[in-house]
This record gives sequence, structure tokens and C-alpha cells, in this order.
Amino acid sequence: MRFVIQRDHLLQSVQDVMRAVTSRTTIPILTGIKIVATEEGVTLTGSDSDISIESFIPREEDDKEIVEIKQTGAIVLQAKFFSEIVKKLPTDTVEIDVQNHLQTVIRSGKSEFNLNGLDAEEYPHLPQIAEENLFRVPTDLLKALIRQTVFAVSTSETRPILTGVNWKVENNELTCIATDSHRLALRKALLETEVEGKHNVVIPGKSLTELSKTLDDTAEKVDIVITENQVLFKAKHLLFFSRLLEGNYPDTARLIPNDSKTDVVLNAKEFLHAIDRASLLAREGRNNVVKFSTVEDYAIEVSSNTPEIGKVVEEIQSQSIEGEELKISFSAKYMMDALKALEGSEIQVSFTGAMRPFVIRPMNDDTTLQLILPVRTY
Amino acid sequence: MRFVIQRDHLLQSVQDVMRAVTSRTTIPILTGIKIVATEEGVTLTGSDSDISIESFIPREEDDKEIVEIKQTGAIVLQAKFFSEIVKKLPTDTVEIDVQNHLQTVIRSGKSEFNLNGLDAEEYPHLPQIAEENLFRVPTDLLKALIRQTVFAVSTSETRPILTGVNWKVENNELTCIATDSHRLALRKALLETEVEGKHNVVIPGKSLTELSKTLDDTAEKVDIVITENQVLFKAKHLLFFSRLLEGNYPDTARLIPNDSKTDVVLNAKEFLHAIDRASLLAREGRNNVVKFSTVEDYAIEVSSNTPEIGKVVEEIQSQSIEGEELKISFSAKYMMDALKALEGSEIQVSFTGAMRPFVIRPMNDDTTLQLILPVRTY
Repeated sequence: MRFVIQRDHLLQSVQDVMRAVTSRTTIPILTGIKIVATEEGVTLTGSDSDISIESFIPREEDDKEIVEIKQTGAIVLQAKFFSEIVKKLPTDTVEIDVQNHLQTVIRSGKSEFNLNGLDAEEYPHLPQIAEENLFRVPTDLLKALIRQTVFAVSTSETRPILTGVNWKVENNELTCIATDSHRLALRKALLETEVEGKHNVVIPGKSLTELSKTLDDTAEKVDIVITENQVLFKAKHLLFFSRLLEGNYPDTARLIPNDSKTDVVLNAKEFLHAIDRASLLAREGRNNVVKFSTVEDYAIEVSSNTPEIGKVVEEIQSQSIEGEELKISFSAKYMMDALKALEGSEIQVSFTGAMRPFVIRPMNDDTTLQLILPVRTY
Repeated sequence: MRFVIQRDHLLQSVQDVMRAVTSRTTIPILTGIKIVATEEGVTLTGSDSDISIESFIPREEDDKEIVEIKQTGAIVLQAKFFSEIVKKLPTDTVEIDVQNHLQTVIRSGKSEFNLNGLDAEEYPHLPQIAEENLFRVPTDLLKALIRQTVFAVSTSETRPILTGVNWKVENNELTCIATDSHRLALRKALLETEVEGKHNVVIPGKSLTELSKTLDDTAEKVDIVITENQVLFKAKHLLFFSRLLEGNYPDTARLIPNDSKTDVVLNAKEFLHAIDRASLLAREGRNNVVKFSTVEDYAIEVSSNTPEIGKVVEEIQSQSIEGEELKISFSAKYMMDALKALEGSEIQVSFTGAMRPFVIRPMNDDTTLQLILPVRTY
């Protein structure tokens, strides 16, 4: 294998596939990046066996030559060293040249590296996925779907299924749900393409986080293919595979209350900052819990009190309060996470009593909701 | 005590004095910030007993009111909470009001904090320093003096004196020297003011690092007063005290060779990047050591080789090589630290054989030098 490549294209691809590479793997060859040169271009692959990322660099793009293939072939190079080397090479073009015994020479200007390669034949094969039943989502919407739900997955392995996000496709609608059993995040989106059949799968939260980092904020479409145990995201020159979590995701529909007894409309940013300040003196005690109560003149009060340190009271003017008076306590962290995830400057918080889960929605937008379980303190 | 203050001035002062505050102190009151309000303005103090920082906020500046003093007095507030609160307050002005029993109310807009204060009488007094024999250094020069030497102090406590920087004042010249016994950094500066007598002290490296962060990059002057066991840096509205290290600093003058056998002139940036790349494959083995050798046609070669991973050879064109041929090995990290510390695009490296310390100087600048001890490998 021998080719000359534009360094910035190589670097971008290396950084993309590095997201899947971990040094903590039981399969030594997975600490490497697989590089395959064909007449069409160069393909890089990284994998930790849960996530696999394949990035393709074409020979030409927009009539500019990116890669000059001198000899086709394949090699696996230690990801940690290879990525550092590519980042620091002195010139705009790089030559990669596999010699005898897997010895790989990397040349750039007057800099010459010799790396011990591994046999590409021994690199595990990526899952073969038949591209049936694919559906298509714009990249920016996909990133929003992930951002608004993935933070709510469980970080504890006691119920592994909750470390993933439940993706359901039905009637041309995609619903993403995450919960750690103390709070829940839900986001829906209508699909532009007709989807046959239904899907109900659980994608590891970590996979979605890495996917989101790999994708640029563009309106280009990502093709999504769901199979029994894998999901594949196909963007331009990029394939992102993730295994799915096994097991049944709990039925979350019954958790979300249909009616409410107190509805408060608030400016999301003002509310977020007030909660943030109120939590400053709550952090040390009571697991970061703040108190929320309706007060006179359409105002609400958020407060916390840790006797050793002090107390804080925040008053926020609401746009409207309807229904019963209310005193309730909840985790400031969960509320801040939820408010950051919601788009829109005005939100409605709907309570059904101090002991029941409550729901936060942006005004005039029923595609997304956040649910939080209160904490018993009053 | 009661005053109303501009939040941005308060925040800046809090962040400055916070540099001296540590949560790991055996004196509980030092986890607090002392706040004193007088008719002239507000003074904040933070200290870990090694470093003490005092920041003054005047009542007025440039004919604008910054503080409105309603009642003079003093209080100590928990630094961790107070600094977080000030950072997040919602409005441009803040009222601080000490009530009965040291209870302190902080008001900003509709946000109200109640903090348990501590008695300011119990806060340790700062050292009293007679302002004799002070000398004056522009802030930007002072920061350069620190930046070019402090990285070379020892991080090991086996010889505590080497964790400081040796400051010598003699004949209106200030010399700063740091060494960890494997390398040495030296920077001299002529003082504009006449200084009576001599000084020879050792300032903890940590103090200088914190001082440097506290000072803005301006050409304003900093007054420096050295006493037997303290040094005081006086900038505008800021006092920075540090204790000095006790003990005798080693005589470093004899370490610096006067003659040389091989002199190489190089572009500092090119050399730095080549060393950086050469060290990529050296990091795992032999303590990050690279080999350096003169080759034909005024070139030098920097290389490293770790058989399990691979090897790298970098060739750099020198401006000139004079004297004997040379092969030498040294720590890539020390060389990169030294090159980053030197200002100027061309540097001269002067060797006196493969086993002797060598010196790196910017061309046409004899105020600064870096010395490195080689490693025996050839």
C-alpha cells in the first residue's frame, strides 16, 4: 500500500474514527486504526466493538485531487501514535508507504516516521447491514434529538437498559425517550420519508453522544438503518455503527400525567439562572434539592437552606399561574438539565400535586417534554 | 457593615484574592475572604498563609461611583460560596449587608442570599512591610521574568529550596534563576530604579505562578519590596505577599560553561516542532529522550526509536554549525520547555561535548539562557 494524501483530510478522518477507539479493549488490534487504499480512495476504520466508525476519503472532491493512490493495500496502525503523528506533521501532504513486514513509513517534508503496523486481515469485519427500511433525518434535527434526550439516561449499570435511549418509529414518527427513573426526556419528530413497519430499539447513550460529536451542524441528511441488534447512521463519507442494547425498555407512556392542577408559564432563561443560584447553597446538603412555591402576584419563589452555610431566596415573575397553590421540592440539577435541553424562551410547567411527577414543555411546541419526579421535603 | 457595589468590580477582586485561598488549610478562617468597608472603599483579602492577596476597590474611579458605603465594618465570608454567588448574581449592582450575629445578606435584583459570616477580628493580620528599598519593574517584564524561569523549578520536595526561583538584585540588575538540577533557566533585567544594597532570596515557584496570573499584561509598574522572609508585589489596587523559602540556593554560576566546542544556530519554531514530533515515539521508552546529531550540509538530525512502536527521524536545516561534529541525547520535554521560554526566532545552541551541559540562547540577546544536562545514550 502506498499513497500521498492531503494532511487536513487525513486528520479529519483520523479524528472521526478515533471516537470509536479506546485503549481499554480486550482485543489488541482494536487499539489500531485500519487503513485501506483502493482505486476509489482511502477508508479508515476505528472500533471498540460497541461502536464502529468508517470514514472514506475519495480520490477527488470538487475536481481537486485529495489522494494519489500509488499502490492499493491495507494496514492497521496504532491509533494513539498515528493520530498524534498526523496532527503534528510539518507539510500539507503526507505519504504513507507500507514496506516489508508491515513496516509503515510516514513521510512529510523532512520528517520520516517508521511505524510497526499490524495485519489488516486480522481486523474484525464490520457488521453487514442490508439497507432496507432506511429513514432519513436532517443532521441538525438528529443532533437536536440526541441533545434533548441523551443527558437523561442512567449512568448506573444496575438497570443497563436505562443507559440507552429508546427510539421508536411508528406512523412516520420517531420518538426518542430517555429516563434514569428520576426524570424523563422525550422528543418526537415527523419523518419525511415513508417508513415501512415499526421499530422499537434502545441505543446506548454513549453511542449517541459520540455520533453527535462526529456530525457537523448541517442540514444534510443522515440515513438511518435499524436492524435487530445494530443501528447504522450514514452521513456523507461516514458510516457510524452502534450495537443496540438488549432487553425491554419500560413503558414510559403511563408515567406522563395527562391532566394538571397547577400550570406556571415562565421565561426559561430567568428560571434557569434563578435555579442555578438557589442551588449554590443546596449543593452541600440534601442532594442539591431546591424548594419551589407559588407566591402572590403571579410570582414564584425558589429557595434553599443549609443551616451551616446559609440560605437563598429567589423570586421570579411568571407570565401566568393557573390552578392551585403549590409547594414542591426537586433536584436543581435535573431542572437545569431539562431547561437547557428545551428550545424556546417560554416554558410551561404543569404540576399535579407536590408528590406527583411534573412536566416542563416549551410553549406552543408539543414535540418535546421533560418530566421530573419531585423530592419529599415539605 | 453595609455597602452597594458594582458587581463586575467586586467579581474581579474576588477572583484575584481567590488565587490565595485554598480549601486545604489547617486554619479554618482562611477558607474565607475578608471584606473590610471603610470610607475610602472596600478591601478584600485572601490567604493560605504562604501567599496573601489584598485587593482594594475604591469608592470612585474616573469620576464614576463604584461603591456606595452605607456603614463601615468588616466580615469574613466562605470564599467558595461567596465567589460562586458573586459570579452568578442577576443584576449589575450588589448590596452586602452584615446584620446581627455576623449574618450577611447579599441582595441583587430579586435574589437574596443569607450567609453565615465569621468574625473579621479573628482573621490573621498580613505581614507589616516597611516600604524601604523598593524597586520597580514594568508588569509585562515581570511576567516575562516569571514565565521564562518558573517552569524549571523542581516539583519534588526532596530539596525544597529548588522549588523556588532564586532572585538576586545587585548593581541595579535583577537575575532570576530556576533549576531542578537537570536543567536551568536564567533571565536578567536591568532595573530602572537605583537599588541600595543587595538581595539574594528564593521565592516559591507557586507564588510566582499565581502572581503572574493575577497581573494584567500592561506596561504599568509593579513595586517590589524584599524583606528577610517576605516579598511584597504592589500593583494598582493590589498587594501580593509571599513568604520566602529558607535556606541557601546553590551557586549556579559554575554550572554554566564559558566556552563551547560546537555551536548551532537554528530557527526556534522549526526546531521545537521537530523535537515535538521526534518525542512522539520516545514518550513510552527511555523517559522521553531524543537523539541529536550534526549531519552533512549544515543540517542536524533529531531522532528517537522505540523498537516495539517504531522510529522517527527529523532533519532540520541549521543557519550555521561551527566547531566539532556532535552526537548527544537529551530530554525532549526539557528542550521544548526551554524553546518555548525563549523569545526570538533564532537561537544558538552551544555544546561542550556529549557529556557536558549545553546552553540555548536567543541570538543577539544575552539577558536570557536555558541550560540542559544531556542524557547518556550514545
